[in-house]
This record gives sequence, C-alpha cells and structure tokens, in this order.
Amino acid sequence: MSGDTLAVACFGQPGSYSDQAMQSYFAGRAAAASYCDHFEDVTAAVAEGRARYGVVPIENSSTGGITEVYDLIRRYDCAVVGEKCIRIEHHLLGLPGARLEDIRTVYSHPQGFAQSGDFFRAHPGWEKVPYFSTSKSAEKVAADGRKDEAAVAGRLAADLYGLSVLAPSIQTNRRNFTRFFIIAPSMETDETADKITLIIAVHHTPGALYHVLGYFFYGGMNMTHLESRPMDGHPFEYFFHIDVMGRLDDPSNAHTLSGLASMCPYFRILGNYASDKGGVL
Amino acid sequence: MSGDTLAVACFGQPGSYSDQAMQSYFAGRAAAASYCDHFEDVTAAVAEGRARYGVVPIENSSTGGITEVYDLIRRYDCAVVGEKCIRIEHHLLGLPGARLEDIRTVYSHPQGFAQSGDFFRAHPGWEKVPYFSTSKSAEKVAADGRKDEAAVAGRLAADLYGLSVLAPSIQTNRRNFTRFFIIAPSMETDETADKITLIIAVHHTPGALYHVLGYFFYGGMNMTHLESRPMDGHPFEYFFHIDVMGRLDDPSNAHTLSGLASMCPYFRILGNYASDKGGVL
Repeated sequence: MSGDTLAVACFGQPGSYSDQAMQSYFAGRAAAASYCDHFEDVTAAVAEGRARYGVVPIENSSTGGITEVYDLIRRYDCAVVGEKCIRIEHHLLGLPGARLEDIRTVYSHPQGFAQSGDFFRAHPGWEKVPYFSTSKSAEKVAADGRKDEAAVAGRLAADLYGLSVLAPSIQTNRRNFTRFFIIAPSMETDETADKITLIIAVHHTPGALYHVLGYFFYGGMNMTHLESRPMDGHPFEYFFHIDVMGRLDDPSNAHTLSGLASMCPYFRILGNYASDKGGVL
Repeated sequence: MSGDTLAVACFGQPGSYSDQAMQSYFAGRAAAASYCDHFEDVTAAVAEGRARYGVVPIENSSTGGITEVYDLIRRYDCAVVGEKCIRIEHHLLGLPGARLEDIRTVYSHPQGFAQSGDFFRAHPGWEKVPYFSTSKSAEKVAADGRKDEAAVAGRLAADLYGLSVLAPSIQTNRRNFTRFFIIAPSMETDETADKITLIIAVHHTPGALYHVLGYFFYGGMNMTHLESRPMDGHPFEYFFHIDVMGRLDDPSNAHTLSGLASMCPYFRILGNYASDKGGVL
C-alpha cells in the first residue's frame, strides 16, 4: 500500500457506529471517507471502483445478521478483506434543555429500536419513526429544533450534533456488539489472516449441509458463523454464508476447501482476513 | 374443537397477505380475527390467552427469515400448530385517477420495498417511506386522498380501500412466496402432521452443529430450513431454529430427537404440524 489517501465508502454518517468502525480499522492510515445512506451505495461504490474499500455492518450480537448486506455482498461480487467488532451503546438524545417528559416522537434506525426494546416498552406512548441511521436521526433532531423529538444514537453523534443525553445506555443488552466487514473489489490477505468467509449452495438432497459441515469438522476448521439466505427465484432453497477459522495458504485448509468445492453447485471464497474480537471476550 | 368461534390474532390489517393466509388456513371454521400492527402484539395475545391462535409471517422466499418473529416465538414460548404458504404479488396502488408521473411518496412495509427493488431503482426520485404493513400503507394513501402518494400492497388491499393499480406485479421475483406460522399457546398435532419445528443451542465446541445435523441425516429426517439467531447476552453464540420432516409419534423420529436432546444445552420442540406447499412446487 502506498502513502496515497485511501478512498473509503462508509455506511451511515459522521458519528455513526460504522464511522467508529472505519476510524478504528484504518487508524494510522490516510483514509478519506465518503458516507452513504444506503448499504447498496457502499457495495456499488466498491464494485464500480469509486472506493478502494467499503465499511458495512454485517451482524449484531443481539439482533443477528444484517441480511440485506449479505445479499448485496453476494450480488455485487465484493471481497471481504477485514472485520471490526464495535461495542454498541445507545443513548436517547434530545435538544439541550429537553426533558424526557417532553418527548413525543423518536427517530432511529430500526435496529436502534430493536436493540432498545425494554426501554421503549416502558414508554408506549411515543411514536417510533424508522430512519436511515442512528446518526442521521440525531442530525434530524438537531436540525428540526423541536423539544418533543428524540433520537436513538451513540455518544459520538451526540457530540457531533450538539445533543444532550436524555437517557443513557438504553440498549436492552449491556453486551451488545456489531461486527463490520471491510469490503474491497478483490481479496487481500497477509500473514495475520486467520479467518475465511465463503458462500456455498448445496445440492437439494438429504444431508447435504451435514456433509458440508463434515469437511470443516474433519479438516479441523472451526466454524464461527452460519447464515442461510434465500436463493431468489428458487423458493425455499438457500445460500449458506459461512465463517471458518483458517488460512488459504495452509495446505490442510486448502485440501479441505477444494474437497468441499467439488461437492457444491455454488462455491465462492469471499476473503481470508485477520479476525477481530473487539473486546467481546 | 367445538363449534365455538375461534379468536385469532392476525398480523397486519384486513386485506393483508397475513389476512389472506389466515382466511385460507381457517377456511370453513368460524374464526373472529383481531388485527395487530406489531408482530409482538400477536405473540403476546396468544401467550396471554387473549387469542386461541395467531398468524405471523416467518419467512419470505426472496428476502429470507423474518428474524424478529423467530425471536418473539422463542421469547413468548409459543407453539407452532400449522403453516401456510402464500404467493406474494405486489402492486403500486394510488388514488383513482392518479397517474404514475404524479407520484412523489410511496408507503410500504420495508419488505414490500425490498421485494420490489428493480421497480424502485427505475424510479429513483420517489421518497420511500417505511410503514407498518402493506395493507396499512394502502389505507393511509386512501385516507390522505393525495394523488402524489402511492402504496405497495396486494390486490385484496386495493379492493378494500378503493385504490387503483398504477403498476401491476412490481415485485422483482415472479416466484415470491411468504410462509406463515399458525401459533398457539401449546402444541396441537394430528394424523396429517409431517413437519417438526424445533429450537436448539449447541455446546461451544468445534463440530457441534455438524453432529446435530448428523442425527437428522442418519435418522432419515430431511431438514428443510435452518435459521441461526443470536443468543442475547452471549455475543456471537447462536440458537438454531430448525424445520425437519417427521412425526413425533414415529418411533424412529422420537429416537432421533431424544438422542439429539441429550447433547444440546437447549432443546425445545415448537410443534408437529401439516406442511403446506402453497403451490410453490
């Protein structure tokens, strides 16, 4: 990598959790971010060469896989070159001087509501309005200037948009993490890589997935995640997005994967990159 | 079952795809529906005895599992007593006399937008507003009475709310089905049952899921669906929601399931019911 500035397409806005993941992943490298309102803007920017890298959330430890992103990565043929885990801490943000009892309407990304279910069940009278992202919700509340509006977002967004924390740490689960993928047009790997992400389809026969997992088990490759995604146009058939620990240049792992590839009607390795625990353990 | 009217909690509104699933499943039985804006209202009504049955979407053949419903069924300890597959056909609906070029704002459930992606990519200037359900979006457009508003919904909703079809069959995929679960407070099974839905967790050891699937493979129980859901408070550990073909009163199936139960830290059978192909095949 040269000293040139890296063009990075980042989901969300300045101050978002994605922004935090990007800043953390590219710390110490000269990266120029363009922020995108939609997941598809990120995958398109990467696939069409307008960005060198993209940053998208792929999985939350409370609400699960972000299925739209799985489908976009597959559809735009992106590679995965890294991951970053970020601890999510949601706050209810409002105008300075606003009180909790002033609030009538709350904006957030749907995941912000889903991850703060207990808090909102205690405030059934509020209208919950789904919005583009947590940080964009904070920006809207600041721009609207109404004391009856609030946003669910992180502290970085509060600082950036000059909002007050009306209720801190409202997420239901204290141990709430989001995992982000760093995507690129093609694979990049180095000596730190210890995790492989791949997508397969299996033949429509009994035990097909069982035999797939047997390759990993007998090959000593520990599977850390399995996500089934529908195969559009083939009702109730599935792609499987799989993460396993391993290295493509390890002869044993390579043997396992080539055996697996021979039995799958669809087999694609998305990347081999350094895993990130992000303080989860 | 007596001749009494069945209280059924149905997701969505009159005219929704869920309503269609309910009417189709309970055809010929006296069912009184209460319609619910939120998935959780359905699971709560069933769990708290206010409804004898509930109807909720669980999986779409284009966009995948409806993960919030999986989590609610587990959290509210509901049983699954049946399933119904419905073909989804979305139309763009507007006021009578409105033309496509009048439209500025479109309301729909997020899945309605997700399933009609190609159509909306061809109309990038429209504001897409997420709303409670497809049918409620149609009701809103009818109530607002504005020619620049449209809704993505089915023909049943067009008829019910007096809207015109501005663009027919806008869903990206012609073969688009949604599978609905019929839920109840406890299991009900009869001689037509041929499908079992269960939830398991596995020990955090390499090959754990592989060995689970081995029980089904060697026990001759064909797995039709596998959905991983996060275990809240245990970052990046998972519940697996599994559908397999079989009967609880079949001695071989019972043997397979009791062997499986003995190795799982969490094991719960949600139901054994008659599978529905709904014209998929």
